[in-house]
Amino acid sequence: MTLRYDTLTFLSDYGLVDEFVGVVHSVIRSICPETTIVDLTHQVAAYDVRAGGLALARSAPYLCPGVVLAVVDPGVGSARRAIAVEVGDGMSVLVGPDNGLLAPAVAMCGGATRAVELTDPTYHLEAPGPTFAGRDIFGPVAAHLCAGVPLTSFGPEIEPVSLVPGLIPVSRIEDGEVLAEVLWVDGYGNAQLNIDPEEIAEFGDRVCVRFGDEVRTARVVETYAAIGPNDVGLLVDSYGLVSVVVEQQSAASSLGLMPGTAVALSGFADEQDQGAGVGVTTQVELSARRGAREEDR
Amino acid sequence: MTLRYDTLTFLSDYGLVDEFVGVVHSVIRSICPETTIVDLTHQVAAYDVRAGGLALARSAPYLCPGVVLAVVDPGVGSARRAIAVEVGDGMSVLVGPDNGLLAPAVAMCGGATRAVELTDPTYHLEAPGPTFAGRDIFGPVAAHLCAGVPLTSFGPEIEPVSLVPGLIPVSRIEDGEVLAEVLWVDGYGNAQLNIDPEEIAEFGDRVCVRFGDEVRTARVVETYAAIGPNDVGLLVDSYGLVSVVVEQQSAASSLGLMPGTAVALSGFADEQDQGAGVGVTTQVELSARRGAREEDR
Amino acid sequence: MTLRYDTLTFLSDYGLVDEFVGVVHSVIRSICPETTIVDLTHQVAAYDVRAGGLALARSAPYLCPGVVLAVVDPGVGSARRAIAVEVGDGMSVLVGPDNGLLAPAVAMCGGATRAVELTDPTYHLEAPGPTFAGRDIFGPVAAHLCAGVPLTSFGPEIEPVSLVPGLIPVSRIEDGEVLAEVLWVDGYGNAQLNIDPEEIAEFGDRVCVRFGDEVRTARVVETYAAIGPNDVGLLVDSYGLVSVVVEQQSAASSLGLMPGTAVALSGFADEQDQGAGVGVTTQVELSARRGAREEDR
Repeated sequence: MTLRYDTLTFLSDYGLVDEFVGVVHSVIRSICPETTIVDLTHQVAAYDVRAGGLALARSAPYLCPGVVLAVVDPGVGSARRAIAVEVGDGMSVLVGPDNGLLAPAVAMCGGATRAVELTDPTYHLEAPGPTFAGRDIFGPVAAHLCAGVPLTSFGPEIEPVSLVPGLIPVSRIEDGEVLAEVLWVDGYGNAQLNIDPEEIAEFGDRVCVRFGDEVRTARVVETYAAIGPNDVGLLVDSYGLVSVVVEQQSAASSLGLMPGTAVALSGFADEQDQGAGVGVTTQVELSARRGAREEDR
Repeated sequence: MTLRYDTLTFLSDYGLVDEFVGVVHSVIRSICPETTIVDLTHQVAAYDVRAGGLALARSAPYLCPGVVLAVVDPGVGSARRAIAVEVGDGMSVLVGPDNGLLAPAVAMCGGATRAVELTDPTYHLEAPGPTFAGRDIFGPVAAHLCAGVPLTSFGPEIEPVSLVPGLIPVSRIEDGEVLAEVLWVDGYGNAQLNIDPEEIAEFGDRVCVRFGDEVRTARVVETYAAIGPNDVGLLVDSYGLVSVVVEQQSAASSLGLMPGTAVALSGFADEQDQGAGVGVTTQVELSARRGAREEDR
Repeated sequence: MTLRYDTLTFLSDYGLVDEFVGVVHSVIRSICPETTIVDLTHQVAAYDVRAGGLALARSAPYLCPGVVLAVVDPGVGSARRAIAVEVGDGMSVLVGPDNGLLAPAVAMCGGATRAVELTDPTYHLEAPGPTFAGRDIFGPVAAHLCAGVPLTSFGPEIEPVSLVPGLIPVSRIEDGEVLAEVLWVDGYGNAQLNIDPEEIAEFGDRVCVRFGDEVRTARVVETYAAIGPNDVGLLVDSYGLVSVVVEQQSAASSLGLMPGTAVALSGFADEQDQGAGVGVTTQVELSARRGAREEDR
C-alpha cells in the first residue's frame, strides 16, 4: 500500500482533559505512521453538532487536501450511520457520523462526489464497548484511507442525497430590519452573525442593533482598535461575515449574546426597502446562503 | 546513533496554559528530531498521580511501541527516584518519577523487564532550579532513548520489585451489594466504576445504585442514546468497565459523583449470592483485578 | 526552494477552543509541509502582550533554532507594524506584531541582527477581513521563511532600534526591603517574582514577605516537598528566579497574588544594607536585569 493522503485533519468534542485525542492519534499512527495529523480543535462543546459543523465549514477553505476526521457524536453506538464522504472527486474524504456534522463543510467543498457507510469491521478495532467510535471506527478508517485503502472497501456506497443535512440559519428582512442570528461566539467573545456586509451596507456607519430587550447603537468599524471604549462595533470578520465586537472585551459577555441569539439590525435615518423574507432555519449550503436570501426577497 | 524508537508518547499534569509542554517538545526535538511526539493529555489534575496512572493504563493497549514520558510529580526535586522502566523486553520504555504513576501501565504491559534510576547527569540538562524535571531530566532521557542510547547508560539498574506500586481500588461484595468506587469522571461527565459487567449481570436490567445519601434506579443500556431523559444509565464503556451515565448530561455533576466516590450496586427482586469480600485498596495490576476479586469470594 | 528552517515554534492567545490554531497549522503546512510545528502555548491571556512576551523569553533558551511565530495582537489590522526579526545572524527569525511581544525573547537571543516590515502581499493570503493576521500574514510569512524565502523578500528593512520594546519590571531596594513584583503565575499557582536568589540571600532561611495588607513569613526551600503544610515557601524556580510557593496548593489563590502584584521582601534579624533603588518599569532586556539593578544601587 502506498500513502494516498499525507494530511489528516481532526476535529472533535473530546476535549483535551481526557486522553481521548491522544489515543486516537496513537491508533492512527499505528495504522499509517507516514500521515501528519493537524488538530483543528477538540473543544467543540460536547454534543454540539451544529457548532462542530460550523467550525469545519469555516476552516474548509484553509485545509490541506486529505482526510478529515470529525467526531461530535451524541448518537454513538445507536442507529446513526458511520460514513465517509468524498469531495472533489477524491481530493479529500470526510469521515464521521451521519448526523449533519460533515454537511456544511461538504457543501463548502462543492458537495459529495461519493459516500459510503462504514460497515466493514475489517477496518475497525475490536472494542470492549460501543462508545468510543473515534478510536474504534472513525480513526482507524481515516488512517486506512490515508494508507491508500480505496473508499469502497469500507462499506456499501450510499446516495449523497441520503446524508443528514446541516442546518444553517438564514437571515431575513422584515419591516426594514435584517433579522439575523449569532452563529458563533469565538474565544475573544466576538459574536459572528449570519449576514454579509452587503446586507447592512445601506444602513451606513451607524446601525441599530436589537436583541432581547436591548437596543444598542453600533458603529461599523474596520478593526478592533477602531472601536471606542465601551462602544459596540460591527466588523467584517476574517470569514467575511459581520461580527458584533467590543474593544478588548467579550462582546458576548458584555451584551449577553450566545450562539442562536436573535439579533435585528436596522438603519437610523432613511427608509429602507421593506423586504418580506420568510425563511427561518433552512437546509442550505453555507456558500449558497446569500443566494437563498436573494430568493427570499 | 540510529533511531531506536520513533514514537514518544507524552502525558503530564503541566496543563496547556503555560509553555511547559511546548518547551519539553522543543528539548526533545533538539536531541532527537526524528521522533514523533504523541500528546496523550497534559491536563491530568495537578499532582494527581492516581488519575495520571489510570489514564496511562487505559491508553496502554492503544499506544504505539516506543518511549512513554509521564510526569505527574508532586515530589519533584525531592528524594523520589527518577526512573526508566522497560517492558516487553525493550518493546517500550516508560520514563517518569518513581511514585506509582507508571505502575498501572507497566502492569498492563506484562510487568517490567528491566528498570534503571536516572542518575547520570550526562543525559540531563543543567537546570537553574530543580522544579522542572520534565524539561531537565525526563524529557532529555526520553529523547536520548529514542535516539538509541542504551537503557543502562542512564544510571544503575534497580530491581523492578523496588518500584513504588500503583494503587487501584478493588470492588468487593458485602450483604449482596457490589461495593464499587468511581475511578474516573471523563469530560462528558460519565463516571467509570471499578467493576466489570459480569459483576452486576445477575442484577438484570434494573440496578439499585446507592451513593452518599441517595438511592437511584439505573437502567442497564448499550448506548448513550438508549437512556431516557433524566434516567440514570449503566453502560459498558469503551474500556470494558461499567460507567454511570446520563443522556447528553454530566452524570457526575447531576448525581454528585467524583473520582473516589463509593457506589454500591444491588439488584431488586431476587436474593443474590451473599459474598463477603474484604479487600479495599490493594496493590494490584489492572489486568489482574478480576482475578483478585475471584480470590475474595 | 530548499527547506531553510525545519522547526517553526508557535505561540499565541488564540486559545484551543476555536479552530484558529488548527487553521494556522493547516496554512503553514500547505506552504511548507516539511517543517515541524512546535506549539509553545496558545493560552496566553487574550491581548496580554506582556504575558506572551515573558512566556517567549522564558522558553527562548530551550527552543530549537528556526522560525518563531508569535501572535498576541490587540491592534490587529490597525497601524501597528507586522514584522520579522532576525537574531543570531539568521539562526532564528521571530515573526509577529511590532507591539513589544517579541522584544524580550529577541533580547534573550542577543538582540536583532536584522528586521523587516511584512508589507509584500505576495506572501500573504487574501483575506475577507483584516482580523486574523495569524492565518493571513504571520503564518504564511513564517512558512515561507521555513521554505527558504529570504528575509528581505517580505518587505523593507527597518531599524532594530525602531522596534517597540518590551517592558519588564525591575526590582529595587527601599528601606531595606526588596521591592519586587509577580511576573507570572503558572498553572500550579506558583508566583514567580522578578528577583534572583542573590537578591534575598542576605535574609537567610526565613524571609518576611509583604503584599497588599498581609505580612507572611516564608521559608527558603529547595523543593516543593520541603515546604511544610500551609507554609509559604520561597524557591529558586526552574528559570533561576525566586517563586512564592505553597505545597501542592496554588500560592497565587491562597495568598491572592497575580501578575503585577507588588511584593516586598525583607529579613528579620540583622540590619540590611539600605539600598535606595529607584527604577520602576524600565526598558530592559531580561538577561540584563541584574545589571540594571546594579546601576540602581
